[in-house]
Amino acid sequence: MSDHVTAVYELESAVPLERAAEVIAGEQSCGTFVRVARESDELRARHAAHVVKIEELPLSGRPPLPGMVGDPNQLRRGRVTIEFPLANFGPSIPNLLAAVAGNLFELREVGALRLVDLELPSAFADRYPGPRFGIDGTRSLMDRPDGPMIGTIVKPSIGLTGDQLAQLVTELGDAGIDFIKDDELQGNPPGLPLLERIRVVTDALKKVADRNGRMPMYAFNITDDIDRLEPNHDAVLAAGGTCVMVCVNMVGLAGLEYLSRRTQLPIHGHRAMYGAYARSPQLGIDYTPWQQLARLSGADHLHTNGFANKFYETDDEVLASVSAVRAPLLGGYETLPVLSSAQTPGLAHLTYERTQTTDLLVLSGGGIHGHPQGSAAGVLAMREAWDAATSGEPLDERAAKVPALAAALDTFGRPT
Amino acid sequence: MSDHVTAVYELESAVPLERAAEVIAGEQSCGTFVRVARESDELRARHAAHVVKIEELPLSGRPPLPGMVGDPNQLRRGRVTIEFPLANFGPSIPNLLAAVAGNLFELREVGALRLVDLELPSAFADRYPGPRFGIDGTRSLMDRPDGPMIGTIVKPSIGLTGDQLAQLVTELGDAGIDFIKDDELQGNPPGLPLLERIRVVTDALKKVADRNGRMPMYAFNITDDIDRLEPNHDAVLAAGGTCVMVCVNMVGLAGLEYLSRRTQLPIHGHRAMYGAYARSPQLGIDYTPWQQLARLSGADHLHTNGFANKFYETDDEVLASVSAVRAPLLGGYETLPVLSSAQTPGLAHLTYERTQTTDLLVLSGGGIHGHPQGSAAGVLAMREAWDAATSGEPLDERAAKVPALAAALDTFGRPT
Repeated sequence: MSDHVTAVYELESAVPLERAAEVIAGEQSCGTFVRVARESDELRARHAAHVVKIEELPLSGRPPLPGMVGDPNQLRRGRVTIEFPLANFGPSIPNLLAAVAGNLFELREVGALRLVDLELPSAFADRYPGPRFGIDGTRSLMDRPDGPMIGTIVKPSIGLTGDQLAQLVTELGDAGIDFIKDDELQGNPPGLPLLERIRVVTDALKKVADRNGRMPMYAFNITDDIDRLEPNHDAVLAAGGTCVMVCVNMVGLAGLEYLSRRTQLPIHGHRAMYGAYARSPQLGIDYTPWQQLARLSGADHLHTNGFANKFYETDDEVLASVSAVRAPLLGGYETLPVLSSAQTPGLAHLTYERTQTTDLLVLSGGGIHGHPQGSAAGVLAMREAWDAATSGEPLDERAAKVPALAAALDTFGRPT
Repeated sequence: MSDHVTAVYELESAVPLERAAEVIAGEQSCGTFVRVARESDELRARHAAHVVKIEELPLSGRPPLPGMVGDPNQLRRGRVTIEFPLANFGPSIPNLLAAVAGNLFELREVGALRLVDLELPSAFADRYPGPRFGIDGTRSLMDRPDGPMIGTIVKPSIGLTGDQLAQLVTELGDAGIDFIKDDELQGNPPGLPLLERIRVVTDALKKVADRNGRMPMYAFNITDDIDRLEPNHDAVLAAGGTCVMVCVNMVGLAGLEYLSRRTQLPIHGHRAMYGAYARSPQLGIDYTPWQQLARLSGADHLHTNGFANKFYETDDEVLASVSAVRAPLLGGYETLPVLSSAQTPGLAHLTYERTQTTDLLVLSGGGIHGHPQGSAAGVLAMREAWDAATSGEPLDERAAKVPALAAALDTFGRPT
């Protein structure tokens, strides 16, 4: 059994890379700027973090972050691997973060620093049970045993009346959608409080189920103060709902973990605010280590962004995120990747070609609600596009047979 | 009573600033890329966020963040003020964050985006009680009715045995220190678990109090999974401890708020990992809005960084952070600024000159433990330097009278 955590960083520094790496290892283990009393060699041997590898990388070309020391002409970039003794923090995600992602971003010895990977020992698996439902549990609850799971987001994000929301959910449910979620902006607003929303939506869904023999999964955004998570979850469960959603960065990984110990429903993990510590290539935390911690903390579904999205990430970055969520983690922690952001039927072939899987939850918000023939036609168009993609049929061929798909492509665009 | 939240951003964009601001307001309120069914004018009127001000700023000169759309030659920079209807999220910090700091960092319409200020309506004060002790409560518990509060961090951060820690605490307590804290790296490690640390430290502190009639405040780092916060706090309380510490970013603002509803002790809020979303001037969240949310969430003490610190921030930035924590907030939320990072006696005059207050908790780690005559001399040197600073006596004059201070200046340096 491994007794250490391996963290990988990409950094730029105007002091020698070896020195910058040693500063990080020192600051984040025994930790101060001067050797102090009682800091014995034996203590250092047991608790010091160790630099195990440094690979030189080409410079990013970006000016260093503020406060860097050293001669900028001496700037070098490297990929640095550091081992931290597990004995320093034990298998605790919050305390792990203090070591591998604490003060180090503020160090003057670096002009760029990004945590890009983590390798955790099995002690974390012993402590954190992880997702309770995962992909299979989700498929089972939404009665979609195979193929891509097609979902949508309630739009407009906020402001619908209960009646309007019920109509929308009914329309989508009757169209055979697999999954509907609240927007991340829809929490517990005074105009249509969460408890009322739960009542309205579950009533509508039950009628859909009675009519069609199948109920879409609806992820209620229960994001709020920690003390409200369990009552919110319980209200969803009591009403017959089948999924809860939290914005992971708003409740914190620790809040997600708290909920996961109590949930009897899959947890849909939204990544809103991820960009705040990820978009700068010079700073912050990559999706790869972040999703590991979110899976350990119990996310059954995790947003990865989608191909050709309206946000900043490239398709290669999206693929890396989807692959990261699908990668094995400590022998378990199976989590469903959620693709969203400007997703339309025209992207089905690209998405399937890149990911080579249908274990995906693909969310189309505007792409379904903005369909010129209405939301039901929007759902049909998504389903037909994906069916064509997975059966090897060109999109245009299918569109020639399915007017709703043709209309979607006319409205939202064809693949370029 | 105000019915909206005002958020201020600094952004760079290659589309017209007015357009970029509208995209943020739209995405973060009604929110999608295409107008959808049921999105009535009346709904928009009630729920849309509004751009209320745009001030042009000089360009940062940094290359835009990845994924920006538009012609980089058209890049402009501005300070944008947006009002969000409170009705969209209610007075909930997690749901507020989804609106003012959610997906917007990922928008392609911006090449830089930073949340720099927030103005919250009083509904937040009705919901969040905030710090229970604040400055006065802290002074009372540590029996330091006026003057700067002098503290230190246990160093080495980790790895001391119980006996060594007891010795260190005893030495510091006998030297009259006001405050001692665990390092942020010291959580609940297997070698000296938190419960054992609490026992060892409180035993030592009680003897100090018996001997000297005064017990330093010790902030036990109880950072861990949410479910462990309350038992950890209760153990500190039961043992007679007077302070708990959490790494705010590791338990999340929501975790801090959860603890604050239960605490009977001041909460020392560490800001480790703050740099991950703050160091890039192009991205993330400024200290000003962050500390507002941390104070609302119940932090009695908040780390601001210190002058001439070993990290990246300039003295002006540190002063801005100290001033932010001392600024009024919704009629309450008095929180003690904590200055740390390479703090030594030589910085007392500068710190007092810049802040013009002694309502500060000044932490010196290496500057006390690394004192050539031992920790007790380190405490004395800090106290004497501050006494000179607040009584208008030049540092060198005082050092000529106090050998421990002279030795500290020789070791750690004089002001430049």
